Amino acid sequence: MSESLRKLAELFQDNSHFVILSHVRPDGDAFGSSIGLALILKAMGKEARVFNEDGPSDQYAYLAGSVSVEKTPVERPPGSWKVVAVDCSTLERLGESFQGWGVRVDANIDHHPDNPGYAEINWIDSRALATAEIVARTALELGFPVRADAAAALYVGILTDTNSFSFRPLRPETLELAAALIRSGADPEMLSWRTFRNFSLNRFELLREILNRTRFAAENRIAFYRLDADLYAKTGTTSLEVENFLNYLQLVQTVQVAFMVEEVGPRVTRISLRSIPAIDVRPVAAHFGGGGHRNASGARAPLPVAEVETQLLEQILPLLRSPS
Amino acid sequence: MSESLRKLAELFQDNSHFVILSHVRPDGDAFGSSIGLALILKAMGKEARVFNEDGPSDQYAYLAGSVSVEKTPVERPPGSWKVVAVDCSTLERLGESFQGWGVRVDANIDHHPDNPGYAEINWIDSRALATAEIVARTALELGFPVRADAAAALYVGILTDTNSFSFRPLRPETLELAAALIRSGADPEMLSWRTFRNFSLNRFELLREILNRTRFAAENRIAFYRLDADLYAKTGTTSLEVENFLNYLQLVQTVQVAFMVEEVGPRVTRISLRSIPAIDVRPVAAHFGGGGHRNASGARAPLPVAEVETQLLEQILPLLRSPS
Repeated sequence: MSESLRKLAELFQDNSHFVILSHVRPDGDAFGSSIGLALILKAMGKEARVFNEDGPSDQYAYLAGSVSVEKTPVERPPGSWKVVAVDCSTLERLGESFQGWGVRVDANIDHHPDNPGYAEINWIDSRALATAEIVARTALELGFPVRADAAAALYVGILTDTNSFSFRPLRPETLELAAALIRSGADPEMLSWRTFRNFSLNRFELLREILNRTRFAAENRIAFYRLDADLYAKTGTTSLEVENFLNYLQLVQTVQVAFMVEEVGPRVTRISLRSIPAIDVRPVAAHFGGGGHRNASGARAPLPVAEVETQLLEQILPLLRSPS
Repeated sequence: MSESLRKLAELFQDNSHFVILSHVRPDGDAFGSSIGLALILKAMGKEARVFNEDGPSDQYAYLAGSVSVEKTPVERPPGSWKVVAVDCSTLERLGESFQGWGVRVDANIDHHPDNPGYAEINWIDSRALATAEIVARTALELGFPVRADAAAALYVGILTDTNSFSFRPLRPETLELAAALIRSGADPEMLSWRTFRNFSLNRFELLREILNRTRFAAENRIAFYRLDADLYAKTGTTSLEVENFLNYLQLVQTVQVAFMVEEVGPRVTRISLRSIPAIDVRPVAAHFGGGGHRNASGARAPLPVAEVETQLLEQILPLLRSPS
């Protein structure tokens, strides 16, 4: 057993009160890994609270079980709590409220390769496809109780971060771990329905609208769409609901890079980029002051949306491979 | 070892020439399981040819490897060939050409629960989520060689029939088998891209058109669309390309039944139905003389498309659950 793992095991065994935090704009792995860990700790007889800067999400309400996600309070909760960050690549991404607590992070459990290790104990495995995978594997290895409710939350973390086991360099270990979570009581059919077939009718309208707006460039090697500030109001949706819609543009075989630009203010444009495995879009995001993963990155640019769109097309063009 | 498995093992070990057939309107499991089996037999030094009534498909061309799929010839190929049917629930579904050969099927490997066992050796496991799963498990159990090319074909069979491990009552055994195929050399990332992100631009246009036509009924518990005879010509697509588009209608959380009606002739309407696990749509398909699975069935009705649409709405209404 490594030194870090021994310390992590001790942290969980020797203490009784934990707060678990994940990153702002939480996704399925942020919720799944934090709720999953809390449920494991509760099964060990511990107190565990789950905080997120953005509070709970209707989208993952079915995961709650005996744990509720709470909006991170501005004041540190009274008493002695050990702080565990999951799925959070930087201290800043834990959100503003937490920064005001003025405490250190005791444990940092993550799979992001750029995690600098900002905590007392850093348990980072960048080979894992989801932080939920690390939480599950570690708990099973340490003999901690992974009951059906925890298994379900962790399964959803893996399901969302691997996009249902697709479009990622999947490891056999990940599939075997998912199998173990099913054996622990996770219901894969129900969980994939609740996770992926959860659109409101408004969100379906938003998808229609986005597909209708989608344009193609550079011999159909680039696909992109633009969102105006009023589209969410018009369709009764929020900006969180547009998450992953670039996947639909990537259905087209010729598409090597897909992007969206969203007007979030008069001179503020949100950019999201996706690419095929062969193309690294991080330099494009970096050009606008952003970053992220090789095939999924983003930025916020202090420029009007039309200007950003033009610059993006220019930046992406030299990265494209010959049409196949 | 069961009697059937012993006979199957002998069939493969004691003979040297095989033709492998799968069902008409082949899907990923028909191609994956037939090509995978052929590649296993070739690795054993056997001759193996893969036939399908509808011939090869561009969509699965990347699976070919050292095996080509051929259109089933009208005449039986000269010489002594053992005939193996995979993923084919009835003798009829092997196609017209094969019926003209006037020979029996030596082995019938399938996962459809309604397979009547029409061959000399029937190796049917309805717990398997794909026929490719049966082929892979059987080959590994018998110690037959499953090399990277066969593993890739079998992985794709599982990937397509499980819709990338989602929306099905997934067994841990299936995930563990998929892990074994990755260890045998299947590249999961490449295969899921080639399998699912393979739309032509025309097919993307067809999807846009279908989503724009999609209507909702019964408090958004039914979603449906209608295809005219000229839509494929208009978008430059074929009827095979509309496969699985009902999945997109099922993204909406309130949708309990999704259906499509397609005008294939003046008084011929093709029906395709999908439902949530709790609802059995087979009786609806049966009303029009069709059949299929509990949550995925279909029919061809000798009625005009508008009439079928009206009758379908009437038939589905009493099956719906209360809105949640």
